[in-house]
Amino acid sequence: MTKPGVCYVGVDLGGTSLRALAVDDENKILGIKKVRTLRTGGPGRLIHRIATLVESTLRDAGVSRSQVRAVSVGAPGPIDRARGIVEEAPNLGWKRVPLRSELRQLLRVPVFVENDVNVGLVGEHALGAGRGAKNLVGIFVGTGIGGALILDGKLYEGSRGGAGEIGHTVLMVDGPLCGCGRRGCAEALASRTAMERDVRAAIKTGRKSIVLKIMKKKRKERMTSSIIAAALKKNDPVMREVMSRAEFHLGILASNAVNLLDPECVVFGGGIAERLKDSFVDPIRETAFEYFLRPSDRDRVRIVPGRLGDNAGALGAIVLAKQRLM
Amino acid sequence: MTKPGVCYVGVDLGGTSLRALAVDDENKILGIKKVRTLRTGGPGRLIHRIATLVESTLRDAGVSRSQVRAVSVGAPGPIDRARGIVEEAPNLGWKRVPLRSELRQLLRVPVFVENDVNVGLVGEHALGAGRGAKNLVGIFVGTGIGGALILDGKLYEGSRGGAGEIGHTVLMVDGPLCGCGRRGCAEALASRTAMERDVRAAIKTGRKSIVLKIMKKKRKERMTSSIIAAALKKNDPVMREVMSRAEFHLGILASNAVNLLDPECVVFGGGIAERLKDSFVDPIRETAFEYFLRPSDRDRVRIVPGRLGDNAGALGAIVLAKQRLM
Repeated sequence: MTKPGVCYVGVDLGGTSLRALAVDDENKILGIKKVRTLRTGGPGRLIHRIATLVESTLRDAGVSRSQVRAVSVGAPGPIDRARGIVEEAPNLGWKRVPLRSELRQLLRVPVFVENDVNVGLVGEHALGAGRGAKNLVGIFVGTGIGGALILDGKLYEGSRGGAGEIGHTVLMVDGPLCGCGRRGCAEALASRTAMERDVRAAIKTGRKSIVLKIMKKKRKERMTSSIIAAALKKNDPVMREVMSRAEFHLGILASNAVNLLDPECVVFGGGIAERLKDSFVDPIRETAFEYFLRPSDRDRVRIVPGRLGDNAGALGAIVLAKQRLM
Repeated sequence: MTKPGVCYVGVDLGGTSLRALAVDDENKILGIKKVRTLRTGGPGRLIHRIATLVESTLRDAGVSRSQVRAVSVGAPGPIDRARGIVEEAPNLGWKRVPLRSELRQLLRVPVFVENDVNVGLVGEHALGAGRGAKNLVGIFVGTGIGGALILDGKLYEGSRGGAGEIGHTVLMVDGPLCGCGRRGCAEALASRTAMERDVRAAIKTGRKSIVLKIMKKKRKERMTSSIIAAALKKNDPVMREVMSRAEFHLGILASNAVNLLDPECVVFGGGIAERLKDSFVDPIRETAFEYFLRPSDRDRVRIVPGRLGDNAGALGAIVLAKQRLM
């Protein structure tokens, strides 16, 4: 069953999973496949794995290689987009990996490499929660806090492609130490890593919490989004307290961005937002509204969770590839 | 002596002074005049004063009314630019004043009304310290802290013309109270008003300082930029300490903006920057460099005082008017 017309493949290259998505010219999804990201064997091995995943996605979707107009990969870390090089991705153990040229050699189709956070927001802007917004801020909460900006209708990348590092907005001078070496960044106050640090610290002071028990039961070393969701569901007081503090700081972070950039919409993405949706974003919105400089922004600025879930990145990568091809 | 060619007039409508500047098509300055802003008599009286100032500037420059292509006013507060209305300017005691239509009736030339902070940065971008930057952040430190953004080469105004409120970036959750009613905004930490509060508080605790003496001698009720400069010159320990804390917070503010927006340049304007220039901005730059997420930005991002001084606003208003007329 070979389908007519053209096809685009988006790939979301994450630290834990690798996801490919094939769509037609109208962004109708033709196929989705997901495998685990294997880091053993170096970049070459992982790039082969990406190529294999793309091919099997095409096969399942009944699309031939000749129908593929482009494969577009959302990859972590700073990207040299012009050359398709992943500059540095600690999550993958990559440093200056020429992803585009290697993948192009394997697949023999045009390949684009984009930043994973950027494609996430472009996806939500084109097809999800940020639809129709001229100016849009994306805040992605995970092990770190990433950000991206759509300004005047298009992805804003800054002077050297580095724009969007909203996680390293200092919100609390002399606050807790951040992974970047500075203190008081949003990432050090409200990322999943910061929340885990605070939960563990509370337990150490003798507070009762079921978080560690859930982690043990689920055989997780880290406090993942699913652990957080399970602990909140059981009304764990430490988890609730830590989450509510993180949401407070995210509310201030969103409000800082709204006061500076005057957007119509702030989209929260990443694992926690995908899992908890409105119950995560509602308290963030409440704080942001309190901190808006312009009270009328309360009626005008939407603060919402992403709508595309796991597909945001791969879809956004495709949308960007289409724009680049135009 | 009537000069040939066209002429543009920029007006800087400030809370204390009113400045008009006439230039030719190449932005060569033909004349400058300045008077005090009188607030008695309401908006009508002040608008008449603006018209009179424009006329006398033209007369002194030897330019006839028929040569004037536009008068462009940089006014404080939020502006309804499409209608030329000053929405709210507490400094002037104005609320929803139709400045454009009234001034047009008096002068019978096209009139533009722009936000004073925006025109300040547009001036520095076109003709001053921010020349050639594709992406540029302006931070204006005075009684408050204003901000403006040039992104992708042009003034970024946001979805409703409200972009740039960088002074209301929360840098210190639960920090000192801000004029906006919230806590820990940059404005509450590093504006002239915040510095005066801190100097007075230090004196109240028994610290020795000559600031109040200088104010008395100069017959100033407020700690103006000239008072600050005089106290620093005399090496007043309280003033030095307060200034250095303000500069530290401004460094973090600049770095937050650089991490988010990846600009080539941050320009500091406003009274203090105009007066103290590099001795004000050097310590700000030092802190910003420490807080940059990308160490390479230290070689790439310029953090500098404005170069146009008092003329930035009027010149920027003219530059914007020329763009609007195109």
